[in-house]
Amino acid sequence: MPESVHRISVAVVDPAGQLIARSGDPGLHTFWRSAAKPFQALPVVADGAADRFGLTDAEVALACASHSSEPGHVSLAEEMLRKVGQTEADLACGPHVPLSPVMAATVMREGIHMSPAWSNCSGKHAAMLAISLHRGWPAHGYERLEHPLQQRILSEVSRWTGEPVESIGLGVDGCTAVSFALPLVGMARAYARFGRSDEPAMVRIRNAMMAHPWLVAGTGRSCTDLMAAAPGRLAVKLGADGIYSAVLIRSGIGVALKVEDGDMRASPATLVAILRDLAQRFEPDLVDALAAPEVARHARLAIYSTRGQVTGYLQVVGALQYETPVGVRTVMAEAR
Amino acid sequence: MPESVHRISVAVVDPAGQLIARSGDPGLHTFWRSAAKPFQALPVVADGAADRFGLTDAEVALACASHSSEPGHVSLAEEMLRKVGQTEADLACGPHVPLSPVMAATVMREGIHMSPAWSNCSGKHAAMLAISLHRGWPAHGYERLEHPLQQRILSEVSRWTGEPVESIGLGVDGCTAVSFALPLVGMARAYARFGRSDEPAMVRIRNAMMAHPWLVAGTGRSCTDLMAAAPGRLAVKLGADGIYSAVLIRSGIGVALKVEDGDMRASPATLVAILRDLAQRFEPDLVDALAAPEVARHARLAIYSTRGQVTGYLQVVGALQYETPVGVRTVMAEAR
Repeated sequence: MPESVHRISVAVVDPAGQLIARSGDPGLHTFWRSAAKPFQALPVVADGAADRFGLTDAEVALACASHSSEPGHVSLAEEMLRKVGQTEADLACGPHVPLSPVMAATVMREGIHMSPAWSNCSGKHAAMLAISLHRGWPAHGYERLEHPLQQRILSEVSRWTGEPVESIGLGVDGCTAVSFALPLVGMARAYARFGRSDEPAMVRIRNAMMAHPWLVAGTGRSCTDLMAAAPGRLAVKLGADGIYSAVLIRSGIGVALKVEDGDMRASPATLVAILRDLAQRFEPDLVDALAAPEVARHARLAIYSTRGQVTGYLQVVGALQYETPVGVRTVMAEAR
Repeated sequence: MPESVHRISVAVVDPAGQLIARSGDPGLHTFWRSAAKPFQALPVVADGAADRFGLTDAEVALACASHSSEPGHVSLAEEMLRKVGQTEADLACGPHVPLSPVMAATVMREGIHMSPAWSNCSGKHAAMLAISLHRGWPAHGYERLEHPLQQRILSEVSRWTGEPVESIGLGVDGCTAVSFALPLVGMARAYARFGRSDEPAMVRIRNAMMAHPWLVAGTGRSCTDLMAAAPGRLAVKLGADGIYSAVLIRSGIGVALKVEDGDMRASPATLVAILRDLAQRFEPDLVDALAAPEVARHARLAIYSTRGQVTGYLQVVGALQYETPVGVRTVMAEAR
């Protein structure tokens, strides 16, 4: 018997940015949250700050991450700060309960004091400091809308999504940086372009994420497990409140989804189901990778009683509605 | 700018069980979860087990509780077990992260081993043991559908909700006991009857809950704060996955709601808004109590960044749709 329902809106676009499949409202205007991170990280590479401070590909991946605050994540964020010549006191983000349940329990059990580098966004913030220093902008206030960095990022968000700057909503994310609201189809379009771009900075960011899936999220997290299961074939990034964006690299198909109610179990489960459907149609050699147990466990989550018995489960229902209805066409060969 | 949306279905009935207001689908068939607890506790009082074992009104309130695992809750559950001559090993429920964030942090920080009495349902389970022993039923397996106790409870659920036994869905709750699925309007009807019943066992349960609001939930929890703000005027009980049921005692109006997606912040916020609306129309002298800060803080929750700034909030939108549309009627005095 069904108990609760999470409604989900989805936009799927082809490499040209045309909507090819949908569910719910693909024009839903909502916050992109952390799925915007590759575009928030772009200026640090494009404008030369990454080279100037000698940031590695691993550090570029961490700049795009919502990491789990595992020791390797926190220490790499600290290393980025050292390279940039800044300290944690310069980070605008604050710590929070780690996204890794294991780390959350460790922190509580051991009474660990969490510094700002423990924020899942600490890589993004360290990168924001790097570009601000590189460009000669004030380091203080880099997270605020009026700072030139956020204006620079806003113009990138507009360029990649195809949404005019004036139609992009501006809020404050949990990490205090600017968050961008726009239609799902714009997010999908940006990821389609991200997956096929030959701009050197974007190529570096894409490859860094795919080469370091653990740094983009963490142990057992869906972004990590998906990119690790299909190396070089998928770039995916979740965001808070039920956001996910992804691109299938070879076909250049971009996906964006939002769980209407913001649930964070429903979004990975749905993304896996959508990627499987798209793989079957457009990249059949990806099907096996998406059936792997590390991926499958995000697709159907069991619900347990306090005695460990399975009392229910999360199940993805429904299907994408493709823009091309079923039909048959005859095709005539070109004369030339 | 809106970010996420929780859709909510509501049924409001008058003392006769007639639907007087709705939102969404008042006939939504869903699990009653812990809002069924007064009816699950009824047999322990009605069949004489509470008197036989000398259970106090506080202990009867705990039998109806989803408590916060604060020390006073856990020790009272242990005391109930002592009176019944049972131990925690006889409880079918298992412990879980306490519903009180303070207790959850304490448990993690101090590495406390949680026994089954820490379950938010431990009072209910201790009462289930009491009646099983009193009636001469096996203590072992009291939580299972085939046990006579669960059949006894099922018949009470049917009697109070007005739903035929065969139409009531049966699942396993997080605490391993049977959970009942039925239309929201049936839940509202049961609460309307619960609020005005003169059956001695139900009067005792109702008064026990209203006299011991802290035992029914815990510090800062919505059930506790609502019943404490309006002593003797409201009986309310939440359930997992976005369920809430309530009755305004004087007008005998019963309410049941379900957050479609199961969110647990949206349900108390919505209940407060609905109770305020109903109070204004039917029990105006309750309006002030429902404006109290301890109640108001459940109605509009702030969302904070990791630096403590308010970045958004939860807001109840929309309104109940009353079954009687706006109109004017003339009334003629009776001749007799």
